[in-house]
Amino acid sequence: MSNPPRAASALDPAIAARLKRDRDGLFPAVAQSHDTGEVLMVGWMDDEALHRTLTTGRCTYYSRSRQDYWVKGDTSGHIQRVRSVALDCDGDTVLVKVDQVGAACHTGDRTCFDAGDLPVTVPHTAAQ
Amino acid sequence: MSNPPRAASALDPAIAARLKRDRDGLFPAVAQSHDTGEVLMVGWMDDEALHRTLTTGRCTYYSRSRQDYWVKGDTSGHIQRVRSVALDCDGDTVLVKVDQVGAACHTGDRTCFDAGDLPVTVPHTAAQ
Repeated sequence: MSNPPRAASALDPAIAARLKRDRDGLFPAVAQSHDTGEVLMVGWMDDEALHRTLTTGRCTYYSRSRQDYWVKGDTSGHIQRVRSVALDCDGDTVLVKVDQVGAACHTGDRTCFDAGDLPVTVPHTAAQ
Repeated sequence: MSNPPRAASALDPAIAARLKRDRDGLFPAVAQSHDTGEVLMVGWMDDEALHRTLTTGRCTYYSRSRQDYWVKGDTSGHIQRVRSVALDCDGDTVLVKVDQVGAACHTGDRTCFDAGDLPVTVPHTAAQ
């Protein structure tokens, strides 16, 4: 789980040393709405995407399918302004709190999870 | 991004068909506090972990380091009761809303992100 960076990056080496990356040099990044608390989406970052997110004020991800960086909102206008970034306790995920402009999901939904409810067959009340 | 399941599972085939798994057959699962909205942790699931999460009422993850399932709280008592589960728009992440008993993080912190703030050098106000 401590794979090397995907590519050279200007990321602070002290932060890079704390990261645990997958076999592709990536880690998940959870974007959460700063004010409403909604979980908006999960993207992927490498060291350089995290560096850009920390230093440009705009959420920047790495697309696994296109194998390139993308700045959220550059196409749609639905940008994410970075409010805070936190690394988790074992260094394999980041949580980015953002001000989301417009819809976070490319489908037009407010979040990427709005249309995906799965059936929970043992509901909360029965699980006590 | 549409790799086969890691192992045989009783997961509903209609749900399994919507999943996009990484090369290890896994996908990230974000646990969010149902009432406070806090993002508590990110774990990993395979088809079977998702099946157990949907049908037992307890969050179940797959440990990449131990290569085994773990039911959150079985050791610590800090269980996560499942309130809802949603798949994201492209099927590669799940969001689990839970009632968290006690601290979510093994360090004793309320969430796994409490101690990990990274320096944002272009803060929100400067990024407008």
